[in-house]
Amino acid sequence: MGRTVAQKLIADHLVEGGLEPGSEVGLRIDQTLTQDATGTLVMQELESMGLDRARTEVSVQYVDHNLLQTDEKNAEDHAYLRSACRRFGIWFSKAGNGVSHPTHMQRFGVPGKSMVGSDSHTPASGALGMLAMGVGGLEAALAIAGRPVYVRMPEIWGVRLSGRLPPWTSAKDVILEMLRRHTVKGGLGRIVEYHGPGVATLSAMDRHVIANMGAELGATTTVFPSDDAVRAFLRAEGREADFREIVADSDATYDVTDEIDLSTIEPLIAMPSSPDNVVPVRKVEGTPVSQIVIGSSANPGLRDFAIAARMVRGRQASDAVSFDVNPSSREVLADLTKLGGTTDLVAAGARIHQAGCMGCIGMGQAPAVGHNSLRTFPRNFPGRSGTREDSVWLCSPETAAASALTGRITDPRDAADELGLDYPDLGLPERASVNTAMLMPPLPPEVARREELVKGPNISALPDLPPLPDGIEAPVLLKVGDNLSTDEISPAGARALPYRSNVPELARFTFDQVDPTYPDRAAECSGTGHVVVGGDNYGQGSSREHAAITPRYLGLRAVVAKSFARIHWQNLANFGILALEFTDPADYDRIEQGDVLALDALRDRLGRDRELTVRNATRHETYRLCHRLSARQVEAVLAGGRIPLLARQ
Amino acid sequence: MGRTVAQKLIADHLVEGGLEPGSEVGLRIDQTLTQDATGTLVMQELESMGLDRARTEVSVQYVDHNLLQTDEKNAEDHAYLRSACRRFGIWFSKAGNGVSHPTHMQRFGVPGKSMVGSDSHTPASGALGMLAMGVGGLEAALAIAGRPVYVRMPEIWGVRLSGRLPPWTSAKDVILEMLRRHTVKGGLGRIVEYHGPGVATLSAMDRHVIANMGAELGATTTVFPSDDAVRAFLRAEGREADFREIVADSDATYDVTDEIDLSTIEPLIAMPSSPDNVVPVRKVEGTPVSQIVIGSSANPGLRDFAIAARMVRGRQASDAVSFDVNPSSREVLADLTKLGGTTDLVAAGARIHQAGCMGCIGMGQAPAVGHNSLRTFPRNFPGRSGTREDSVWLCSPETAAASALTGRITDPRDAADELGLDYPDLGLPERASVNTAMLMPPLPPEVARREELVKGPNISALPDLPPLPDGIEAPVLLKVGDNLSTDEISPAGARALPYRSNVPELARFTFDQVDPTYPDRAAECSGTGHVVVGGDNYGQGSSREHAAITPRYLGLRAVVAKSFARIHWQNLANFGILALEFTDPADYDRIEQGDVLALDALRDRLGRDRELTVRNATRHETYRLCHRLSARQVEAVLAGGRIPLLARQ
Repeated sequence: MGRTVAQKLIADHLVEGGLEPGSEVGLRIDQTLTQDATGTLVMQELESMGLDRARTEVSVQYVDHNLLQTDEKNAEDHAYLRSACRRFGIWFSKAGNGVSHPTHMQRFGVPGKSMVGSDSHTPASGALGMLAMGVGGLEAALAIAGRPVYVRMPEIWGVRLSGRLPPWTSAKDVILEMLRRHTVKGGLGRIVEYHGPGVATLSAMDRHVIANMGAELGATTTVFPSDDAVRAFLRAEGREADFREIVADSDATYDVTDEIDLSTIEPLIAMPSSPDNVVPVRKVEGTPVSQIVIGSSANPGLRDFAIAARMVRGRQASDAVSFDVNPSSREVLADLTKLGGTTDLVAAGARIHQAGCMGCIGMGQAPAVGHNSLRTFPRNFPGRSGTREDSVWLCSPETAAASALTGRITDPRDAADELGLDYPDLGLPERASVNTAMLMPPLPPEVARREELVKGPNISALPDLPPLPDGIEAPVLLKVGDNLSTDEISPAGARALPYRSNVPELARFTFDQVDPTYPDRAAECSGTGHVVVGGDNYGQGSSREHAAITPRYLGLRAVVAKSFARIHWQNLANFGILALEFTDPADYDRIEQGDVLALDALRDRLGRDRELTVRNATRHETYRLCHRLSARQVEAVLAGGRIPLLARQ
Repeated sequence: MGRTVAQKLIADHLVEGGLEPGSEVGLRIDQTLTQDATGTLVMQELESMGLDRARTEVSVQYVDHNLLQTDEKNAEDHAYLRSACRRFGIWFSKAGNGVSHPTHMQRFGVPGKSMVGSDSHTPASGALGMLAMGVGGLEAALAIAGRPVYVRMPEIWGVRLSGRLPPWTSAKDVILEMLRRHTVKGGLGRIVEYHGPGVATLSAMDRHVIANMGAELGATTTVFPSDDAVRAFLRAEGREADFREIVADSDATYDVTDEIDLSTIEPLIAMPSSPDNVVPVRKVEGTPVSQIVIGSSANPGLRDFAIAARMVRGRQASDAVSFDVNPSSREVLADLTKLGGTTDLVAAGARIHQAGCMGCIGMGQAPAVGHNSLRTFPRNFPGRSGTREDSVWLCSPETAAASALTGRITDPRDAADELGLDYPDLGLPERASVNTAMLMPPLPPEVARREELVKGPNISALPDLPPLPDGIEAPVLLKVGDNLSTDEISPAGARALPYRSNVPELARFTFDQVDPTYPDRAAECSGTGHVVVGGDNYGQGSSREHAAITPRYLGLRAVVAKSFARIHWQNLANFGILALEFTDPADYDRIEQGDVLALDALRDRLGRDRELTVRNATRHETYRLCHRLSARQVEAVLAGGRIPLLARQ
């Protein structure tokens, strides 16, 4: 039977299990990607494992998140990461080199390779025909140490593309259309695989946009075939030798199917405050905006900046708008400057920021309360911008540039009509401005072994994680609704991010968006621990394992939810928190915050049964729950997490 | 008798008093400059005065300090400032347009005009033959309202320049030489006037560097003649019609004199943590550095960036260094990009930041503790970088670029030898990329009157300021040493700056660098108020009136010091705090923190006598003190400050 691209990639890396959806598979990992907001914990984990040297083909640590340096903490993290890369044989991409996802694709992406990254947008490299998945930091650390990564075998969701995008629409509108159709839960337990004749009309960087923001569908990853567009991309990056064709067999079949005729796509926009809150731009045209931001890993390509630059050339951003441009890498900034685009943007009133993630992770350029901000970013979860009551919209660079000129949400087709703009030929260069000088290669092993780790006062040790008790009788400290994101569990933003290397300090921000009293209330019941009750798709969004470690540090022992997002579910198991699902989702409504829940004989029952019974001691009721943990995960949860388990072994 | 340039400028604007040093003069003010970190209070003051419309020739509000936007507060300040400019008939320079000082000089500087600015580096415009002084925000507000500004007539300090700077030295080294010779107190009560044949060898932007950082000498201002170099500058900015020659009369005499032979200048550097801690670069050559920052109002000209770009062209910054470049304005960024300099810097590994003040005011790019940071900035007061135990050095762009390449402090002459670098011809353009679209002109009066002020939740009202009691008997809550800066009284930096529109919140940071317990201890003695004892040059540095308002809000009634820096001394009087000096400086040593000081019959005695007696109730001693307040200032202090006085009138 023929195989899809995803099935080929998985089969090529299989070390355990088979290809039946739902079963656990172990995968050999060729490459890893870590970034600074999650990477400091990864390096602490490598230390605590006693790793001598990375065992992957390529492991790269990027510094792209915490670049504001409002005090000494960010710079200390950077110094620690640099020293850890020197010690462990890991590539180090300096602050200013660029955002991990496009930079990794440009410098290291190889069709057919597998990769995990401690960042939920890691699937972006699926644009090159890679199997690239976001994981928690500990999974990334284990992959660096040469261990397989275990995932539940996803369904393969074939999305057939036909036609060609009309002028003034672009890849961002395609992924917004997917989100409009399928919501942030649509991809749970699935790999999205694009195929069909429309694929060839999209460049590798267009595919990056779609694969990157595929994370917002909740998908395990996204893959594209490796074809001539990938060859052209690698040629432009001076790496054509890394090309290898990977396409689906003609008789391949998909577990789930969908189809998009690209010629029917129109400019779309995600309204506040969820990436799936998508409507046509024309439906909200005229809404006043105070800020436009172009950049991030969701629209990182030269064309994304060049089209915006060309649209504003010789024009001025509205005087009521802050027009922020955030280059995704120094390569893109160099090429954009050569094209004249930097000059066009500056002349039009853009504020050009340093290359990095910036406002996408709430590190700077937060908008005022009650003011609309339009961004080419992948996410607009509440408060992620750094402003508690924000109003963030997600759109294409074309819609962003059109709206910057008018000061209101504007369909780029209407702006083009009004301004007499023909759809431009951007004249993109055939060769990129490749410059690897900010990317430091691993040291030779004998040198690396002598390197000392540089630890400033903000780099804490990992907390101790005692084993799971056999019985839990603890209050529901918090009850939340559907689609709670990890941003709401452990916030990004300039206040919290500098503490990402310091679990006790970071824990003070846990659930800050939802209920700032949570840390204090958790301390009050530290004797029994506590439970959180959630709805569907609990823990969507960012891969940050801090969303598991910090509540665990505060005493969280179990989360009972209707369903879980994949990466956070893995992180909970990795850090010894029991993730349980309602067998009957209606039971969710029977539990109130403050109720005391009791679970017994866990050591005996977890390994034996998928089903458990929980007693509500407050209401004298019982509910049936189930878990999806593998035997390996059960062992880790009982031990208090994977690190204590490793230490014991 | 012939007059100096400074005397001519003062005489041209005199509305009260004479030219004898030490007497109070009232000056007509043609222009004002405010920036966002001090401007929000200025606008609140205009509101509380009930101003209808600015009465100056030109008043400009710049947004250049608080650009990080780590949460909603900065953006709310910007929206408030924009609305206030629209209401009061003030020019508004949007975030991203540039740092106030170079931008003002480029767009509005006119030889012969007077200006005050709520920023201590306002004297930079003295480069064009303007009389430009830093003042507290309330002085700026009164000037906007058309009132004269009162200052004590300074001595004129003639500094004769001869010769020509050797290659690899520049204007920054000249002002560092002045600081090496004269310290941060050397200019107290003086205007520095440069004259002599060496002046013609310096461009207007070179003079800006020297005049800007003349603030670090403690000088009232710095002036240069308006000559052919000024004409060339105005021509490049498309404003030659604004040129007017102003030179000293041939028989002019100076109150104090000094002389610098420019040909003897060598590369200099200010060591941590004072701008006058100056040594030759060669004396500290080889010291490892972790960060290099090029930018700020102290080195804002195109040539300052272009020389650095040329030096690093085709080379790479050391991998141990973060190489940060902070363009001073979008005009400079546009011209630098046209010259190819942006491309050279990016290729060499620079992180290009948005145009603004950035790390100079502790808004971003804070270094790690224990790591040396080399900056082309004007100030390195302790903690100003945002890092509490920082290690910041001040130098020229040439020294900064040389050190970026080597990763250690490097004399640019030695770097040039090593690299085989000839001193470059920078090929600077004859015309600047003038673009005024981010500078919004005042609205017509009939439109302005209908404008509403936009006030987010972070914009507080000014606190009530009750009158000075007739007697004070209060503890010395804090005793500090010489040269205490306003950075140490009310910090800059990313934590505190967002509260600059919110006095109660900002007050929590008062004296944070010196003694973080101060606000709590002040609250404990709110019944009696409290006193601070200081050394020489108390309140040097930034003009921020927050350094007077916030301790006043916490109960500060009097500061007893050996001497005061000019702007802070005025701010104390403006906000009803009694500034008293020891008649015998040795008495400073007799008072300990915690002693209770008593002053009686203030209403009667302050207006009558320059001398007062203070009783130390703890030690049963008395000391003689004096004050330098004018009758106008005594009236304001007794009323509780100038705002309650205005309200009463």
